[in-house]
Amino acid sequence: MTKHAIDGSASPTGHASRRRFLTGTLAGGLVAAGGSEAFAQGRKKKPIGPNPDNQPPNVPDWSKTLGDGVADHPYGKPSKYEAHVVRRDVEWLTASRQSSVNFTPLHELDGIITPNGLCFERHHGGTADINPFDHRLIVHGMVDKPLIFSMDDIKRFPRYNRVYFLECAANSGMEWRGAQLNGCQFTHGMVHNVMYTGVRLRDVLEEAGIKAGAKWLQVEGADSAGMNRSLPMQKALDDCLLAFKMNGEALRTEQGYPLRLVVPGWEGNLWVKWIRRIEVGDMPWQAREETSKYTDLMADGRSRRFTFAMDAKSVVTNPSPEAPLKVKGRNIITGLAWSGRGKVTRVDVTLDGGRNWQEARIDGPVFDRSLTRFYVDFDWQGQELLVQSRAHDETGYVQPSKVELRKVRGVNSIYHNNGIQTWLVRANGETENVEIS
Amino acid sequence: MTKHAIDGSASPTGHASRRRFLTGTLAGGLVAAGGSEAFAQGRKKKPIGPNPDNQPPNVPDWSKTLGDGVADHPYGKPSKYEAHVVRRDVEWLTASRQSSVNFTPLHELDGIITPNGLCFERHHGGTADINPFDHRLIVHGMVDKPLIFSMDDIKRFPRYNRVYFLECAANSGMEWRGAQLNGCQFTHGMVHNVMYTGVRLRDVLEEAGIKAGAKWLQVEGADSAGMNRSLPMQKALDDCLLAFKMNGEALRTEQGYPLRLVVPGWEGNLWVKWIRRIEVGDMPWQAREETSKYTDLMADGRSRRFTFAMDAKSVVTNPSPEAPLKVKGRNIITGLAWSGRGKVTRVDVTLDGGRNWQEARIDGPVFDRSLTRFYVDFDWQGQELLVQSRAHDETGYVQPSKVELRKVRGVNSIYHNNGIQTWLVRANGETENVEIS
Repeated sequence: MTKHAIDGSASPTGHASRRRFLTGTLAGGLVAAGGSEAFAQGRKKKPIGPNPDNQPPNVPDWSKTLGDGVADHPYGKPSKYEAHVVRRDVEWLTASRQSSVNFTPLHELDGIITPNGLCFERHHGGTADINPFDHRLIVHGMVDKPLIFSMDDIKRFPRYNRVYFLECAANSGMEWRGAQLNGCQFTHGMVHNVMYTGVRLRDVLEEAGIKAGAKWLQVEGADSAGMNRSLPMQKALDDCLLAFKMNGEALRTEQGYPLRLVVPGWEGNLWVKWIRRIEVGDMPWQAREETSKYTDLMADGRSRRFTFAMDAKSVVTNPSPEAPLKVKGRNIITGLAWSGRGKVTRVDVTLDGGRNWQEARIDGPVFDRSLTRFYVDFDWQGQELLVQSRAHDETGYVQPSKVELRKVRGVNSIYHNNGIQTWLVRANGETENVEIS
Repeated sequence: MTKHAIDGSASPTGHASRRRFLTGTLAGGLVAAGGSEAFAQGRKKKPIGPNPDNQPPNVPDWSKTLGDGVADHPYGKPSKYEAHVVRRDVEWLTASRQSSVNFTPLHELDGIITPNGLCFERHHGGTADINPFDHRLIVHGMVDKPLIFSMDDIKRFPRYNRVYFLECAANSGMEWRGAQLNGCQFTHGMVHNVMYTGVRLRDVLEEAGIKAGAKWLQVEGADSAGMNRSLPMQKALDDCLLAFKMNGEALRTEQGYPLRLVVPGWEGNLWVKWIRRIEVGDMPWQAREETSKYTDLMADGRSRRFTFAMDAKSVVTNPSPEAPLKVKGRNIITGLAWSGRGKVTRVDVTLDGGRNWQEARIDGPVFDRSLTRFYVDFDWQGQELLVQSRAHDETGYVQPSKVELRKVRGVNSIYHNNGIQTWLVRANGETENVEIS
């Protein structure tokens, strides 16, 4: 029996009868260090529980004493009662601490903004801790005049503010071969959604002058991996940003401080962090992360490559294995939908594994290529549920089932799994990652 | 001569020849502890400056070593190079640590979202550190059935996501009698802008059943001050929320965790934090914070009361005293505009004290009663500037000059100063808070 922690701490232990554990590689060369069930990184703190002395008709402690003053926390942090709301990694997924990934606790969030402290991380050589005074962006190759920009130089181009989701191509990658990770933090938590402030990549390139025949860029980070990818010029000129702020403040170190590339709707690996170099050329560079990794191995042994755009996808975040139903009666089903090809136009939810679908209520801003929040207000009388959500986007695309997706793509890939997720809610409210055929 | 810290640390020392220091009271009973110039709370850390060894053509240190891994920061925090970006208080404004205020560093931010850690604080009895398991909201008075809600109860009402600014009625209050505080963090930093997730106050009230004749609510916090205000029923039923999330995650302790009232467009004092009680009645309660405080003392000795809505306002955040111009040539003027009565429709900027105005470029989402970001891209050749901004909202209202505002309201008030702000930019880029008549 799968254990569910009511306090919200992660306990995504596998359910052997229902899951086959994937061995092999994940997300850019990460070797699975073992298929055991003991992979929850979660800091298992004892939750701080209720105390009737602080409930009515008693006057609670916090109403009787002066609390902290305004000078005590120049930069604030979450309440101690929210200590379980953290990014978590999965130890057996990672061969090294620095080439690894952690996951956003989607089941603990609401709305569409991901707080900066909870944006998932994916590093290929650890976090570069850059002094912005010394950071430089070099633009060279097929340009009229190669240029070196300081951060101050960059910030003097016209600025733009846009909310975009960033999803790792390997998000849900462990689920290609069957329901495996028991929590939406782990199945879908390699996505975040932030308001970026930055300048147009187009404006920076045009300052250097793009030569005729230029069709691709090499974009490269200043981390120890020198993470590099090839980016089509057309996309670069269309909507890419060089961002220096996220959600109003400077980028976080682990998100590319002081400068990252924003590639709206496209896989996260292209959003090069700590960007230090842009080389203009006429062909892709065939970098490691677009040949060995971030390609989609098909059933016949061939690979799909340069599969940049993230197709429409959604997930119910509550209920989910880390956020079971607690009481009968009025309840909220909520989740997130997104598409790398435009706005989400509709989300359907089923409670019975797809026999009946209802349209969810979308609430909050609906931006182009942004997370979109949906809700279903419903009355739960303790019946078993098979909960799924299905996103539609403005191109007319409808999120496929995993069965449909595997028919086309097979099960060899790690990337671009946007299949419909199923949660089984049991009569006691416990919720589990399952698949239905 | 006013000193300006290029590193961004606060140095808002007064300029005696231009400013008269206000003695008396501010913002709900705060006693000015002295009119001295030494009031910057700023932690004056030595900034971490440039190091040519880390600049091209050298390979910087951070590209040579593996950085932190993904398990190192379960909840992230800003780069050490951003340590100066903090909320700051002004020591002489405050009689006590707990009944005090600090200010958002607007000049360090961009876009329209205020990160949770930088949202200004205003407390009347310190921060209530509440265990959400024990917190209860009581709804009583002129209702059919008095009710007590747990946090779980509240979260089962339908949820809504909205971005709203919250401005303290006393924001810019020290400027009524003349240019005084030398930094937009201090003149305008009692405002923040957040995406809230919550439930409609209307839905909660209707659960209790509102009796005929009910016209007002008393809303009361669980802090040691038991901060309470009277709220018109019409507003409560129109658009107020009981919010439990801000920017996706749980409310911060200092912003009312686990539950705060959201009163869109109205003065911040009404947005009761740690809300524990709602009493339904037929008349206002004449609470301290609406009789002695948060009223506008006019020149003839009478007071304006229940002046809830915040009129349209704007400020240029860069350049400003804490963010001087650094180099000639291409530069960005940017700032924020907002209105408690609807959307901002236009922002004008002048560089010559109002002789010539140009329309600023608004960029990013324009929400109803939200901060709105504007830019002017311009070429600076070292000329002295008198920079102002002027907001328009969808009601047709235009932000007034301080001179116009004083004609109507006098100079006795501390609240609701939405006059146009002037920054003097000198030939060396240093920027100062001034007034022009």
